[in-house]
Amino acid sequence: MNPSPLTNRRNLDFMLYEVLGVDRLCAYPRFAEHSRDTFGAALDLAHQIALEKFLPHNRKSDLNEPQMVDGKVELIPEIGEAVQAYNDAGFAAALADYDAGGMQLPFVVAQACDSMFSAANPGTIAYPALARGASNLLAEYGTPDQKRRYMQPIIEGRYFGTMCLSEPHAGSSLADIRTTAEPQADGSWRLTGAKMWISAGDHELGENIVHLVLAKIVGAPAGVRGISLFIVPRWRVNADGSRGERNDVRLAGLNHKMGQRGSVNTFLKFGESGDCHAELVGEPHHGLGYMFHMMNEERIGVGMGAVLQGLAGYLYSLQYAQERRQGRHPDQKDPTSPPVAIIEHADVRRMLLQQKVYVEGAELLGYYASLLVDHARDPDESVRRDSHLLLELLTPIVKAWGSDYSLKANELAIQILGGYGFTREYPVEQNYRDNRINPIHEGTNGIQALDLLGRKAMMQDGAALKLLMAKIAQTCIEAGAHPPLMPLADQLAVAAKLAIDATRAAGARMAAGDVRLALANATHYMTALGHVVIGWLWLQQAAIAQAALADASGDDRDFYAGKLQACRFFFATELPLVEHHARLVRDGEASAFEMRPEWF
Amino acid sequence: MNPSPLTNRRNLDFMLYEVLGVDRLCAYPRFAEHSRDTFGAALDLAHQIALEKFLPHNRKSDLNEPQMVDGKVELIPEIGEAVQAYNDAGFAAALADYDAGGMQLPFVVAQACDSMFSAANPGTIAYPALARGASNLLAEYGTPDQKRRYMQPIIEGRYFGTMCLSEPHAGSSLADIRTTAEPQADGSWRLTGAKMWISAGDHELGENIVHLVLAKIVGAPAGVRGISLFIVPRWRVNADGSRGERNDVRLAGLNHKMGQRGSVNTFLKFGESGDCHAELVGEPHHGLGYMFHMMNEERIGVGMGAVLQGLAGYLYSLQYAQERRQGRHPDQKDPTSPPVAIIEHADVRRMLLQQKVYVEGAELLGYYASLLVDHARDPDESVRRDSHLLLELLTPIVKAWGSDYSLKANELAIQILGGYGFTREYPVEQNYRDNRINPIHEGTNGIQALDLLGRKAMMQDGAALKLLMAKIAQTCIEAGAHPPLMPLADQLAVAAKLAIDATRAAGARMAAGDVRLALANATHYMTALGHVVIGWLWLQQAAIAQAALADASGDDRDFYAGKLQACRFFFATELPLVEHHARLVRDGEASAFEMRPEWF
Repeated sequence: MNPSPLTNRRNLDFMLYEVLGVDRLCAYPRFAEHSRDTFGAALDLAHQIALEKFLPHNRKSDLNEPQMVDGKVELIPEIGEAVQAYNDAGFAAALADYDAGGMQLPFVVAQACDSMFSAANPGTIAYPALARGASNLLAEYGTPDQKRRYMQPIIEGRYFGTMCLSEPHAGSSLADIRTTAEPQADGSWRLTGAKMWISAGDHELGENIVHLVLAKIVGAPAGVRGISLFIVPRWRVNADGSRGERNDVRLAGLNHKMGQRGSVNTFLKFGESGDCHAELVGEPHHGLGYMFHMMNEERIGVGMGAVLQGLAGYLYSLQYAQERRQGRHPDQKDPTSPPVAIIEHADVRRMLLQQKVYVEGAELLGYYASLLVDHARDPDESVRRDSHLLLELLTPIVKAWGSDYSLKANELAIQILGGYGFTREYPVEQNYRDNRINPIHEGTNGIQALDLLGRKAMMQDGAALKLLMAKIAQTCIEAGAHPPLMPLADQLAVAAKLAIDATRAAGARMAAGDVRLALANATHYMTALGHVVIGWLWLQQAAIAQAALADASGDDRDFYAGKLQACRFFFATELPLVEHHARLVRDGEASAFEMRPEWF
Repeated sequence: MNPSPLTNRRNLDFMLYEVLGVDRLCAYPRFAEHSRDTFGAALDLAHQIALEKFLPHNRKSDLNEPQMVDGKVELIPEIGEAVQAYNDAGFAAALADYDAGGMQLPFVVAQACDSMFSAANPGTIAYPALARGASNLLAEYGTPDQKRRYMQPIIEGRYFGTMCLSEPHAGSSLADIRTTAEPQADGSWRLTGAKMWISAGDHELGENIVHLVLAKIVGAPAGVRGISLFIVPRWRVNADGSRGERNDVRLAGLNHKMGQRGSVNTFLKFGESGDCHAELVGEPHHGLGYMFHMMNEERIGVGMGAVLQGLAGYLYSLQYAQERRQGRHPDQKDPTSPPVAIIEHADVRRMLLQQKVYVEGAELLGYYASLLVDHARDPDESVRRDSHLLLELLTPIVKAWGSDYSLKANELAIQILGGYGFTREYPVEQNYRDNRINPIHEGTNGIQALDLLGRKAMMQDGAALKLLMAKIAQTCIEAGAHPPLMPLADQLAVAAKLAIDATRAAGARMAAGDVRLALANATHYMTALGHVVIGWLWLQQAAIAQAALADASGDDRDFYAGKLQACRFFFATELPLVEHHARLVRDGEASAFEMRPEWF
């Protein structure tokens, strides 16, 4: 039985090494001092801190959400203690250069470390995760001075960070933001506006908070082309890096959420007194591009965060199903026979397998996408280019498919526990509530679907999709070499072909000017292509498991047998759905499109 | 725009009269004094009380859940006031005879009245709904003395009731209950045991609580054949009907739930002091059959309760989508153009239509099943027999399909509201949480699926299914007479045939002894047959709408156009899924069945 509530380490190692070969990254100069041993040590450390410092207050955070007292945010003390332990162990600097005091870990390994914290406590990990996102953006686009004054203190765990995009009237529509920036004679900027849904927007965990804020410079072009990016520190930072006066950023309110209650969600007002100091990042009007650098990694982070909530629920319900004894087989008519463990009931195994294929499939996809981020450091330009293209294509799938299906997994975990699952004495209902935000934030899943079909699948004449299809074809060849997997390889090839046909039809419709109708089925496209991608990853796992099975024994043998069976389950019960969803895209299903508002 | 947050009255009238012809029940002697006018007056009254007394404290109940203080349950006062208003208006006696002070309403009309209360506040309506269930059971199986002493005070709104089935170790497995009953020399009984998950198990709303408790008489046969049913009053009731001493029933604890927090959920102990007085209902060892009389109506009630939460979320998100302006069409490149109402976005309409087809489809099914309950009073024996058969078949679908798909609807309502939907400032997240219990209680949906495939579809050589198929064929003929609906009629006939083929294959497998494998796909069978049934009801609605459209004008025209478009949407996006799920049943999909516990 898996001994941890946070991870199945056997499966994590399988994904990282047997499937993805993450240790090959150590051939890159940047990771030359790393090895499977140092990765393993980081994972062990993350697991220990997550178990000891993050998990114990997960329910307490839910029951004692942040309060606004005298204009400040009050958190339960365990949050600060956990973040401190995380920073002390160096995880705030997991990605940073050795020179900056960092661990210089690959992105994929840092994601795997964070998986432990996410599974243990998604509310608490939000604070350092957002800070790291801000520091990554500054590492890429900040001036040396901005890096020294804002990025370095984040890496050291002293400062935190946020992303400020949404406004109350425009959650998803950034073209309509109203926050404005006025240049000053001394080259500095003053900001005025209000930002909504700002996670970790105010708290006393560190010395300062670095808000990365989208705003429009006075007189800028309308729409997203007129958006710039600014650093707005909660406390101003002097030239020498010392902390200056309180900046004109005010906590105007808290949002009271269904879940993720531990991570404070704020409404912030900038420049109410006309004195909100800001620094421009990069060039004027290019802010959205910079923010998307951060957003893309955050979207992988959101997808992974969702998956880890799915995993936490899966592991809990699996253990429950192994221990809880109730009922008998339908052909067992003797009422004096002992009740069986509920995992003996086929429908319970169905619910467990559904969770397994969703969660382990999406988890592997998240690590694969993270590995593609690391490939930006590959010496071979074609690898860098291809990896970037694939990453662009897969990111909306990581985010949307991952969060949609992990949420379904959480729902199934509740169902397995029955009445107990509906109570707050068990963790699975909180898993669901905490996870419910993930299909919404960092771009709703509807927007991810539009991005996937309208941009990513079409870009460079479908270059990213072609790359993906070549990889799928390769997997079909490799898996097909194992006779038991031959029918599955054939099935995947057919499903992939259906997705391609749907893409072509949608593309032709868009080219002919029917953009709205083509994109009306974007969510069906997400399901179709997402299922193809997850089916591909399951077939990869099955091929590796099949090859390893002959020489495996004991727990390993069971592990590989489980991978094979889960692949068969996905191909029997999920992959056939591609046909339906791809057909709706291909045929331009129009009933929702043609429905009129007044007919409801 | 629909003016009520609780109901779409135009649609309710459409279902009750245009589709189901509920007013034809007035031809039965029992309902001879009723008319569409009296039904309408009852519905208006229910709507008014629901709006004024139930809706306003729905969130307050969620935020201030019942507390156990000095061994008693404390509720917020608004619950008592709402229940009082409900009783004062006569709804506790909606079904009861005129002689007993009742309204003598048909079951289907009483359900429609209750729909207003369920949509407004599912926690508060639970108290009178359970009381009514208990009084219905006693009306059927109680002695005249039991009716006088226990049923009559419920009808008068003075007593409440519960169903006590589950025990902590055996939620779904009634064969394993341990509560025991010992006969006394004077013919009375003493009970000992513990019951879990008892809704409304203790409170001070009325003078007394009538617990209907499943227990085993000492020496009874093992399993469900040894279960008897007992009345256990919280306060003993003297022969003259006056209230006697406190009985030996103790509130041992409260369950703290994810949702439905207003309805107290209790852990009760019976006979800790050896003095729990009980009265046998009916014959010894026949208790489960009596309870299932109540359970079947409760299962319709649970399905309807779920649907009404789905409806509340749908109506709210519809209004939100009509009012909230954000974003532009994908081919609108001018960022200075005004944002559109989000209902203009095709994917939002898709999410609204999905809610509409799930909720209105399941709601109509619930009313149809309720009408079949009323057909027990039909003078024609063949109508009574057929209606009973159909009711038996449809009840698990009402419960399981209704709760599964209404929950999906609630999830979509949250998604439409975006970040706001995730906050407790808006009602849709509570709708979801309140609804999450419905796939679990009154028999989990997995158990409903086993009941559907293993018993109901097979009973009397498939007689119920044959009846259903004859009705579906009739609808296909009627709808097919309208040329625009002809392809839909053909599609439904094909889908129904697939469900029948799957049923035959599963039956053959069971007859051959492969019971476990055949039933391993019961949940897929529920989806397949459920979709066929809902598709059938949508086609019925479409045929009526198509016929009415030509002469309709104004809002009516929009209403019928919406019904037709929703039917097309269901047939395009949902009904095709029957093929997949039916095939899994037909082919005896075995991957979950063959998965071994140690492989997870």
